[in-house]
Amino acid sequence: MTTTPLNYKSAGVDYAKIDPLKVLAQQAASSTAVNLARHGLTEVPASRGESAYVLDMGDFYLASITECLGTKALVADAMRAITGKTYYQAIAQDTLAMAINDIITVGATPISAHAYWAAGGDEWFTDQERAADLVNGWKAACDACGVSWGGGETPSLSGVVAPGRIDLAASCVGLVRPKERLTLGAKLGAGDAIVLLASSGIHANGVSLARKLAERLPQGYATPLEDGRLFGEALLDPTVLYSPVTEALAKAGIVPHYSANVTGHGWLKIMRHPAALTYRFTSVPSVPPVLRFMQQQAQLSEREAYSSLNMGAGFALFVAPEQAAQAVATARQLGIAAYHAGVVEDGPKRVVIEPIKVEFAQDELSLRA
Amino acid sequence: MTTTPLNYKSAGVDYAKIDPLKVLAQQAASSTAVNLARHGLTEVPASRGESAYVLDMGDFYLASITECLGTKALVADAMRAITGKTYYQAIAQDTLAMAINDIITVGATPISAHAYWAAGGDEWFTDQERAADLVNGWKAACDACGVSWGGGETPSLSGVVAPGRIDLAASCVGLVRPKERLTLGAKLGAGDAIVLLASSGIHANGVSLARKLAERLPQGYATPLEDGRLFGEALLDPTVLYSPVTEALAKAGIVPHYSANVTGHGWLKIMRHPAALTYRFTSVPSVPPVLRFMQQQAQLSEREAYSSLNMGAGFALFVAPEQAAQAVATARQLGIAAYHAGVVEDGPKRVVIEPIKVEFAQDELSLRA
Repeated sequence: MTTTPLNYKSAGVDYAKIDPLKVLAQQAASSTAVNLARHGLTEVPASRGESAYVLDMGDFYLASITECLGTKALVADAMRAITGKTYYQAIAQDTLAMAINDIITVGATPISAHAYWAAGGDEWFTDQERAADLVNGWKAACDACGVSWGGGETPSLSGVVAPGRIDLAASCVGLVRPKERLTLGAKLGAGDAIVLLASSGIHANGVSLARKLAERLPQGYATPLEDGRLFGEALLDPTVLYSPVTEALAKAGIVPHYSANVTGHGWLKIMRHPAALTYRFTSVPSVPPVLRFMQQQAQLSEREAYSSLNMGAGFALFVAPEQAAQAVATARQLGIAAYHAGVVEDGPKRVVIEPIKVEFAQDELSLRA
Repeated sequence: MTTTPLNYKSAGVDYAKIDPLKVLAQQAASSTAVNLARHGLTEVPASRGESAYVLDMGDFYLASITECLGTKALVADAMRAITGKTYYQAIAQDTLAMAINDIITVGATPISAHAYWAAGGDEWFTDQERAADLVNGWKAACDACGVSWGGGETPSLSGVVAPGRIDLAASCVGLVRPKERLTLGAKLGAGDAIVLLASSGIHANGVSLARKLAERLPQGYATPLEDGRLFGEALLDPTVLYSPVTEALAKAGIVPHYSANVTGHGWLKIMRHPAALTYRFTSVPSVPPVLRFMQQQAQLSEREAYSSLNMGAGFALFVAPEQAAQAVATARQLGIAAYHAGVVEDGPKRVVIEPIKVEFAQDELSLRA
């Protein structure tokens, strides 16, 4: 096994190469908003660059999104050879979670979703056990989130998708109703409490790094972690679905000032809102064993780990300080660990994580045009 | 060059293998509709199995869909080596057309769309000419259809998507407003006129067959057609966007009794509605040279050709007989050739195409659970 440190770029994902196209696309997309006037509609401009797109429908807002799983299905495929399980029930939840955990950041209640399952060949669909797991997991995740599964697309894309593989994505539609639930950060400001909701593990971001690491480990995905579980098995813990929490908060009268889904770029996502504010953490969640293992094995500094993995924080809620305790309690009642971990302050745009002595400056994240 | 006839199955797409999963997924999806009650909403059950999913929002219906391009980008990639053009402006239109031409079948006005561009590696995004063509084509198609491009996802999926390739899909949201525009076939019946809207060529269905054929041709995609154009160039004529026609029809007070987007399975899609009716054609559109060429070279019978390719008919409108002439005129005013080509009759479920002496029985198409 080599001992060269692994970082996200060497693991095959270079955001600098993707982001210029993203900026070009965002500018072109933004210029099409004028088309809505033909239908007597307007967009909510502040939703551009946020995790979901929001239209003003008069009585309510309509949010929509399309998100993909990424490469996590490759881990499931590899683990099946080791344990015989398909893991596609978990993979289905991961895929839906990518869309649902993003659409709720704007204050939307997800109401319907479409599946996008593009296989590398027809033979993918003939494996009945795996297909049933995918279908059952998708249904279970929809039920957990109160979503109606509206349909989808199951193309066979030989030559586009790699042989034996599947490209999984989900689109989702949600309602922000009443309109006061819209959370695009207008009220985000100094003094807000930062409540972190626990992740279950890697979720679906950082998987390229995990795969590269598995290649370097003598036992690969079968390497046991401290707690005795296999590395690959722990990687496949499904992403937590956070919409039950945001729905329960709404029922309790708590409207976050802002929300951030902690995905690619890890804790850099904490500062995704354009405002110039400092996000100071005085505590951090406990780190799931699989992420601590990855950090150690890939020789990632705390700085590298927290800027590429969720490190135990799957979702961030920015709430009025007097509501922090109730927000934490609401999540815990649903079985999701939550922490009042930090505070928003006036100051330069940055994330300060005191317990690990790491600070991220604003120029480390560029998500917008 | 071999002279074995090519059919769709030998070209790598076996619908019999895909459809069992599709049925399983449709049943599971349908069972999640009860979740809508949590939000005080209901679905329109008749939209299950149709081309787009429809929710009842009270004052209007909300339609949503996710669709993929398929493998047409492979043709663009191959043609670039021959002519130096990227063709991704056309490919972008094709991708959006897959979603838009489906969502309009239920009577919806498309209002917003998301892009799903999943590449086989970061390097895909560094080709600035191709990326700009993709962005510009996407924007142009949105503008042509009055759609606001809300955002999207541009993942790099090394190991899932084939190296150097891109998996393109689109999701779309639309409104059926007023609700009387809903077209799920409730009024479809004997006596209705069938108006066919011309296709521009292969659109994005039948591409696997075209690719297989190109492999067998000594000059491949560079083979000249009767009209002198190259086979590959003609294949890349972008799919017609039909929403300007359906919007113009609505303005003219014409609400089709049903609509069908002619995609995979070719003219079998004409009988996609569950009703037991006979669809009789007394004329057929002129066949685009590229489709006639494919039929000849692949030695497809008329029966095989019309059940796998659009053969000149990209979209079918089923309208009251007294509105057929105006529907044809409306499309022609927008530059889209249209034909009053057939009639709906009482009788067994089938498609009868008299000019070519072909009849398809209902058991040749199974799209529903």
